Amino acid sequence: MTDQSDAARHAAHAYVDLLERRDWSGLAALLTDDVVYEMPQTRERVRGRDAFLRFNTEYPGDWHLRPRRVIADGRLAALLLDVRVGVEQQDACVWLEMSAQGLISKIIDYWPEPYDPPPGREHLVERW
Amino acid sequence: MTDQSDAARHAAHAYVDLLERRDWSGLAALLTDDVVYEMPQTRERVRGRDAFLRFNTEYPGDWHLRPRRVIADGRLAALLLDVRVGVEQQDACVWLEMSAQGLISKIIDYWPEPYDPPPGREHLVERW
Repeated sequence: MTDQSDAARHAAHAYVDLLERRDWSGLAALLTDDVVYEMPQTRERVRGRDAFLRFNTEYPGDWHLRPRRVIADGRLAALLLDVRVGVEQQDACVWLEMSAQGLISKIIDYWPEPYDPPPGREHLVERW
Repeated sequence: MTDQSDAARHAAHAYVDLLERRDWSGLAALLTDDVVYEMPQTRERVRGRDAFLRFNTEYPGDWHLRPRRVIADGRLAALLLDVRVGVEQQDACVWLEMSAQGLISKIIDYWPEPYDPPPGREHLVERW
């Protein structure tokens, strides 16, 4: 388990670092041929390394990624990212699955948006 | 690292299970006195075990939680939850931090909502 976790942790760090540096050949080397990328909020799925790389190279905006948490456990990893595009900031939750060969075989991205809290719990919370 | 990870994984599973069963005394025993619960999307924070338990006992709706992924790494854990309230379904991303004594000291919840995909990437994605 520990060796697998170490490999998954390393891949998760490399995934963010290579995206941030737009190192597309480095990123490609991390991925299985048939990697699947899913965005459950829009029910969108991208199949295959070539389409996933193109999705990223075509993604608009001067986006920047900084890992806030990287957690690895066997063949699974999770990343909490600080994402910035200009002055806009958003957190992203990313879930990775590794193949038996230590390549990333599945990526699930969540992009939670700010919203107004529902009324009725003001007595229990503080805002920041 | 492995012992800590095992303890964090156990606490993460117990956290969901005890919430689902509304076992408030069992849940209380998992938490530090000064546990902090944060919802970054609304910038809300609940401080302390008593307030956090009350937040949950007062939370409206017949909600049900099912863990889809539980990942633990040292003192950190991440959970991907399937949350249902009646026929409504939503995924939640939960990040846990453990104290040196193996209690949950911080909880960060993200509640990503569905949204429409932006135009311009239809050639790369399939929908489900």
